[in-house]
Amino acid sequence: MNHLVIGVDFGTDSVRALVVDANTGEELACDTAVYRRWAEGRYCDPGKNQFRHHPLDYIEGLEASIKGALSKLPPEAIQHVVGIGVDTTGSTPVAVDREGRPLALRREFAENPNAMFILWKDHTAVREAGEINQVVRSWGGTDFTRYEGGVYSSEWFWAKILHVLRHDPAVRSEAFSWVELCDWIPALLTGTEHPSIIKRSRCAAEHKAMWHEEWGGLPPEEFLIRIDPLLAGLRERLYIDTYTSDVKAGGLTREWAERLGLRENTPVAVGAFDAHMGAVGGGIIPGILVKIMGTSTCDIMVARKDVIKDKLIAGICGQVDGSVIPGMIGLEAGQSAFGDVYAWFRDVIYRPLETILMSTSRIDGNTAKTLCQEIKDLIIPSLTEEAVKIYETDTCLLALDWLNGRRTPYADQRLKGAIMGLTLGTTAPIIFKALVEATAFGARAINERFIEEGIKIEQVIALGGIAAKNDFVMQVTADILNMPIKVAASEQACALGAAMFGAVVAGLYETVEKAQQKMGCSYSKVFMPDPANAEKYDSLYKKYVETGKSVEDMLRNL
Amino acid sequence: MNHLVIGVDFGTDSVRALVVDANTGEELACDTAVYRRWAEGRYCDPGKNQFRHHPLDYIEGLEASIKGALSKLPPEAIQHVVGIGVDTTGSTPVAVDREGRPLALRREFAENPNAMFILWKDHTAVREAGEINQVVRSWGGTDFTRYEGGVYSSEWFWAKILHVLRHDPAVRSEAFSWVELCDWIPALLTGTEHPSIIKRSRCAAEHKAMWHEEWGGLPPEEFLIRIDPLLAGLRERLYIDTYTSDVKAGGLTREWAERLGLRENTPVAVGAFDAHMGAVGGGIIPGILVKIMGTSTCDIMVARKDVIKDKLIAGICGQVDGSVIPGMIGLEAGQSAFGDVYAWFRDVIYRPLETILMSTSRIDGNTAKTLCQEIKDLIIPSLTEEAVKIYETDTCLLALDWLNGRRTPYADQRLKGAIMGLTLGTTAPIIFKALVEATAFGARAINERFIEEGIKIEQVIALGGIAAKNDFVMQVTADILNMPIKVAASEQACALGAAMFGAVVAGLYETVEKAQQKMGCSYSKVFMPDPANAEKYDSLYKKYVETGKSVEDMLRNL
Repeated sequence: MNHLVIGVDFGTDSVRALVVDANTGEELACDTAVYRRWAEGRYCDPGKNQFRHHPLDYIEGLEASIKGALSKLPPEAIQHVVGIGVDTTGSTPVAVDREGRPLALRREFAENPNAMFILWKDHTAVREAGEINQVVRSWGGTDFTRYEGGVYSSEWFWAKILHVLRHDPAVRSEAFSWVELCDWIPALLTGTEHPSIIKRSRCAAEHKAMWHEEWGGLPPEEFLIRIDPLLAGLRERLYIDTYTSDVKAGGLTREWAERLGLRENTPVAVGAFDAHMGAVGGGIIPGILVKIMGTSTCDIMVARKDVIKDKLIAGICGQVDGSVIPGMIGLEAGQSAFGDVYAWFRDVIYRPLETILMSTSRIDGNTAKTLCQEIKDLIIPSLTEEAVKIYETDTCLLALDWLNGRRTPYADQRLKGAIMGLTLGTTAPIIFKALVEATAFGARAINERFIEEGIKIEQVIALGGIAAKNDFVMQVTADILNMPIKVAASEQACALGAAMFGAVVAGLYETVEKAQQKMGCSYSKVFMPDPANAEKYDSLYKKYVETGKSVEDMLRNL
Repeated sequence: MNHLVIGVDFGTDSVRALVVDANTGEELACDTAVYRRWAEGRYCDPGKNQFRHHPLDYIEGLEASIKGALSKLPPEAIQHVVGIGVDTTGSTPVAVDREGRPLALRREFAENPNAMFILWKDHTAVREAGEINQVVRSWGGTDFTRYEGGVYSSEWFWAKILHVLRHDPAVRSEAFSWVELCDWIPALLTGTEHPSIIKRSRCAAEHKAMWHEEWGGLPPEEFLIRIDPLLAGLRERLYIDTYTSDVKAGGLTREWAERLGLRENTPVAVGAFDAHMGAVGGGIIPGILVKIMGTSTCDIMVARKDVIKDKLIAGICGQVDGSVIPGMIGLEAGQSAFGDVYAWFRDVIYRPLETILMSTSRIDGNTAKTLCQEIKDLIIPSLTEEAVKIYETDTCLLALDWLNGRRTPYADQRLKGAIMGLTLGTTAPIIFKALVEATAFGARAINERFIEEGIKIEQVIALGGIAAKNDFVMQVTADILNMPIKVAASEQACALGAAMFGAVVAGLYETVEKAQQKMGCSYSKVFMPDPANAEKYDSLYKKYVETGKSVEDMLRNL
């Protein structure tokens, strides 16, 4: 039997463990565990955009998913597992005590959401992010956000820490340090949680914590105190060094080895964020943009250091040495709404019907309920089917895709969406088509940003739900990008990427590029741009850009 | 018993006859007759925007509606009928023979749509209208469209005539002259159809046929030939003089008197267009704008000649001496989509659902059909109910109402609509509210045009379906106009206005203003602007204007 490696991918709702043949990349078994407390809606307050994960959800999910996947293999397979890699959402930090234990694992904090992981999409720290940005602007010295896209987000490390420190004195007094989820899982598995030895992910630190070699790590104490004196002293209890995922975090502890039925000391790689490992799993190399297409998109590229040199790519989300492939510069961009734009339009159509259907006397309540669900599920497929019929029709409709603000190029959360060119003949499928085009134009704007900076893109590899499910969206995107798009065959590209790093720390491959070459995934589909459509869209894209520019200010101020 | 008068209102789908007490204005009886052939969809081709009415539909409907209304009164009432007034849609011309008979009434033309009335909304003559406008621009002499808003429409007299002359040699050879519906009905009733004696409506001639005293009536032969030599000779077979509706077209013929059971020689007034007579019925006087609010709006004002003098109000649809109230200048403006904008949004929501519901196996076909109809009918009321709840909420959404182009101010059919400021939180009711605001902003833009030209507006009187049915739309419109809006109590303001002219030609009143004073309708509701909302909307209106200006060019060129 070949060597096996495990990739573990911690998502928003669940965690997946994937067992992979380390020689061939064959995906042998996969299992998913839903976070139990999260599924019950505990510790969250969507009205306040508060989203927290209890550490026990992670611990239980980790065990269940790995054991679940292994149980699908012959018993002897377990002996062949030689390495583990981990990717997670982020920035998802947690307050830990002197031993590096998340506070919520202590009885007195067991029910305190502020003692839990603050999920990436938690927006409770909007105010703190604003204050951080103000200090960044008025500081006069180094711009510590320059490698993070130039704007600090409420979704990130320092803003979340400050928010909790301000609002929860109990957590404040017990929080010795703070740890990202992608650092904590490998530390947990390898018994390296103690703040003095835990290995921190370069990907997380440099994208979210303003860490950079250029200024010797985290921002200086003086800067942090300028943001808020509450941050005083924290810097030295955090970290100086950061690590790429080809580095071993440690070996599996006896306890976890027993729990999982694996061998003690099995090497575990330093963690990283899901999209970055997904890019590796999807087959990223210089010249390829990997696009993780779901509710939003995360767009990843890598560039050789001798190409990028000291250049700072303006208007993207982040530029981090080794965040994706160690030794190369990882570049991150993204659209803040992609599939969410279609879901938004579905709901515009669906909600009024739900109101009416749930109160009609013509059908009984249960039928109404199932009918509602059926309608809701069918709206996007049905609109897609109609839109396919008008694929080549010029509909005179132009939409701007900034319904959730704009992330790349040049992040601006104040921007909003628009639909322009409506006539009495504009139907729902025509609007849907325009929204699909708008999201694809948004994708093109990202590509253009890279290209303008001299970063060549020859091809796009797509991962994620939209790539797997909606061929129409993918074809229009290929036409508008005027570039082939390959869809990764693996539905678990993130876990696959994590497994590749597991193979590297197991010593099977010298570099993750070599692991990619042997374990690289295949592609289920290739969307080739239609030349006629690509040409037509080329001029429509210019209109999108011009129109966007001319109404930007107005949209900001609405 | 008091004197009675009858107002007959020829609409798009049906004709209404209203019997009114000429002393008090009390509406005693009303009856509606649907056009039978039209209801069957005959002679029309919606795909080509071809809409024709068979003259027999009018004749049969005229008889049925008047007899229907009279039958609801005591038999002796008939003896008290002393006058008849008529209003119709327009421009709705027909080709007539040497005797003034619509060609479709002759056996050989009985089934030829080109020998029938070409309904106002027929757009088959788009090309001819374009050519007319080109000649108007390149002509060098008088601009014959200057009192008609400066742009000749495919909905109008000459364009329609030219289109038929070009495409139907049989009609071309037999068409001696052409007659508007509002001229033909009074002529039919009074036996004055012969082209040499038929009295032509000033309202129709000056709004639609480029007739004006300034250049001695219709445009000169030379101009018409420049448009197309096919028009040669027609001018002298048309008319020189035109008449206002306080003039008698003639007395009821014996034949029609017998058919209707009325007295021979009962005076019949010269006809006019529906909106203009509706304005009279609604209570128009200088300083009041009467707004007929349906799928689109028609906005009518009157101005004293000593106020308006030689001034030409730019950017409106028409300015005609006596078109509304004889002796005053009638001013016409309008929005090319009003209720149609809401119906459009309803269909955006409804159509996808219909597709899904009609193919689900969860309910049977008949239930699906009735459910569809129920949902379709409930969407606007349901959106309205939800919009009322957010009446005072600032939703950051701004729409432009030009989904059917813009009629006033400054007609431009190439303009299109837009919805700007969308976020993932934008719901259907929020969009609906923005569309209501947009149509009200469109209304305000018309008011501003009048006011800028020195035509004061102190109050708005509203007629039509929207005014009667949707209080939310009316309140928002009152807020945005910052002006009280009275809703006419009469659902038959057009027919009531026609009846007032019937009373004038019967000799009961010296002028129609005096008829208005005695017979004037009451108001069912008054919408007072909410001061806080009016102020808020005042600044949003400025955004509407600015945004509109900045995207106009872009919308034109989409």
